[in-house]
Amino acid sequence: MVATPSERLAARTLELIDVPSESRDERALAGYVLGALEAGGVAGRDAGDTCVLGGVLERGERPLVLLAGHLDTVPAQGNHPGRIEGGAVHGLGAADMKGSLAVMLELALAGAGGGAVDLGYVFFGREELPVAEGALTPLLGREPGLRGADLAVMMEPTAGAIQAGCLGNVNATWTFRGRGGHSARPWLADNAVHRAGAGIASLAAREPVAHRFEGLAFTEVVSVTRVVGGIAQNVVPDVATAHVNYRYPPGMPAADAQARLRGWCEPHGELHIDSDAPSAPVVAGHPLVRSLVEAGDLAVEAKQAWTPIAEFAAHGLPAINLGPGDPAMAHTREERVEIAALVGVYELLAGWAG
Amino acid sequence: MVATPSERLAARTLELIDVPSESRDERALAGYVLGALEAGGVAGRDAGDTCVLGGVLERGERPLVLLAGHLDTVPAQGNHPGRIEGGAVHGLGAADMKGSLAVMLELALAGAGGGAVDLGYVFFGREELPVAEGALTPLLGREPGLRGADLAVMMEPTAGAIQAGCLGNVNATWTFRGRGGHSARPWLADNAVHRAGAGIASLAAREPVAHRFEGLAFTEVVSVTRVVGGIAQNVVPDVATAHVNYRYPPGMPAADAQARLRGWCEPHGELHIDSDAPSAPVVAGHPLVRSLVEAGDLAVEAKQAWTPIAEFAAHGLPAINLGPGDPAMAHTREERVEIAALVGVYELLAGWAG
Repeated sequence: MVATPSERLAARTLELIDVPSESRDERALAGYVLGALEAGGVAGRDAGDTCVLGGVLERGERPLVLLAGHLDTVPAQGNHPGRIEGGAVHGLGAADMKGSLAVMLELALAGAGGGAVDLGYVFFGREELPVAEGALTPLLGREPGLRGADLAVMMEPTAGAIQAGCLGNVNATWTFRGRGGHSARPWLADNAVHRAGAGIASLAAREPVAHRFEGLAFTEVVSVTRVVGGIAQNVVPDVATAHVNYRYPPGMPAADAQARLRGWCEPHGELHIDSDAPSAPVVAGHPLVRSLVEAGDLAVEAKQAWTPIAEFAAHGLPAINLGPGDPAMAHTREERVEIAALVGVYELLAGWAG
Repeated sequence: MVATPSERLAARTLELIDVPSESRDERALAGYVLGALEAGGVAGRDAGDTCVLGGVLERGERPLVLLAGHLDTVPAQGNHPGRIEGGAVHGLGAADMKGSLAVMLELALAGAGGGAVDLGYVFFGREELPVAEGALTPLLGREPGLRGADLAVMMEPTAGAIQAGCLGNVNATWTFRGRGGHSARPWLADNAVHRAGAGIASLAAREPVAHRFEGLAFTEVVSVTRVVGGIAQNVVPDVATAHVNYRYPPGMPAADAQARLRGWCEPHGELHIDSDAPSAPVVAGHPLVRSLVEAGDLAVEAKQAWTPIAEFAAHGLPAINLGPGDPAMAHTREERVEIAALVGVYELLAGWAG
């Protein structure tokens, strides 16, 4: 008896969960993926740096759509190995994003694509680390064929909706300097922690700002996520340091975003931009995206976060987010993915690509 | 040829510096002090817990004045052993307060006192630690003779002035609680570091308040001396913690001081009082203090800090601060005490006590 798509997808997701692949330890899973492609007679190759490519990898006569998935997970939290229970596959990475990797593999093995579009499969690592350490941007740099694609579908958990665009993400260190002294005579000193308090209070007073971009609502927000200062109970400290995390909407150039942040922070202390992951444009109006939306009667939402679609965008590729996992499950101890959601996205993509 | 007081005091200070005595490691120095008293034929005894007592230790016909010194120093900073150079003795504890210990020992060996007043000598440890860990309060508890004295002169560095009264000193932990979340959607969370910023900014806005007490000016001040919060760049933190140091003037009851601090802090976060070292009254009008001031034509100032005179005061003993070291030298790498200052305080006390 041939297994149903539901059985195949559930079993594949469980197998993928059970090959550990925390960030920087993706080698075994890359080997598993390549082996599965080869065993199924599907074109696949090792693209270096534990990246694996499969399916159609150059633009031919049909539009080329890349389905992209990251191999790595966050660290385990007592949720490994996985299990199948209650109509869902449970375990580390189930939603983010081994369920999506299973959909990709099963589409490849089923020979999906070749009707309306060709499908290429892009597996890569280190996505859960800061973007400068990820494997996707270097991969796109060394694979010109991929850059010729028409659309990338980054299969991050979106609960089956299309999440378009993504926020830019600035991480910065904010340093407050004063002059040390004895806390019995603080007027002879200049308290850096007090300076930090004023700065943080000022930044915290900034309300979220709604922006519409290409018809979708994105929210610009800034948070102080860490602070540290002081050396002793009775010493007025001369330095304190805070970490600022700023999310800016598509359509705002990175230079403008950084200038805005500097304008808010620098009256209070020195600001050093540690990293700036760019935003990605909304491509909901792209003909391929419109046809996909129609094929699945999909909701189209703003992605209120940063995702690797920004890395595709930086290489000139239109990209969206679409995956079966529920974003609320990502990175949780109770992580799971519904089998029906796996089937839904699998059938949508298979039917659409032909 | 008999050494001059100047030579004796300088040599004694250097010997005392060269016996290491960081807090909790005072045993060798206590042994040195007891040995020096015994070698000079002066009554002295081991009072337990590395405390040493010498001279007159019970009130007789004359007023009894205790000269008190702590044996311990802060940790070395490349300033040990000591040396004599340029009219000063240099090294760890020179000002705070081995120069004073030398003055005490040389007065005892010279048989000072017995004219206007009797002199008793109180050497104790762990003064540089939080007051609850110090050796003086337990010593006063087990030595009723000391509690019958008329005046205690705590020989902390005052540059030869009388510094009367001392501030109360509250140390407290201020905890700000929120609700964690993703920094891309901070409106779904409640940022504890932002709450800390508002609290710190509010407390920092409190200007120092001048108080006059018994004719001297004390300044009430509050500082946030440490802060820490946050677990990751992209996580809105659910808790942040600050340390508050509050100095309140003599005349303000400890309960009132704590209530004031709670009133400022608790609208922003939970406040836990970790310790409260009480203030000490100003006893500048005491007849013995007045006669000492006249004998030396001394300046009388407020002690804008906390000192062990509060521990004497808590046991009912009037107490003042007076010592040869410059307070600005205390705890510094360049610590030193002028030999002329040692001689000045030695001759003042010898002449006054008779």
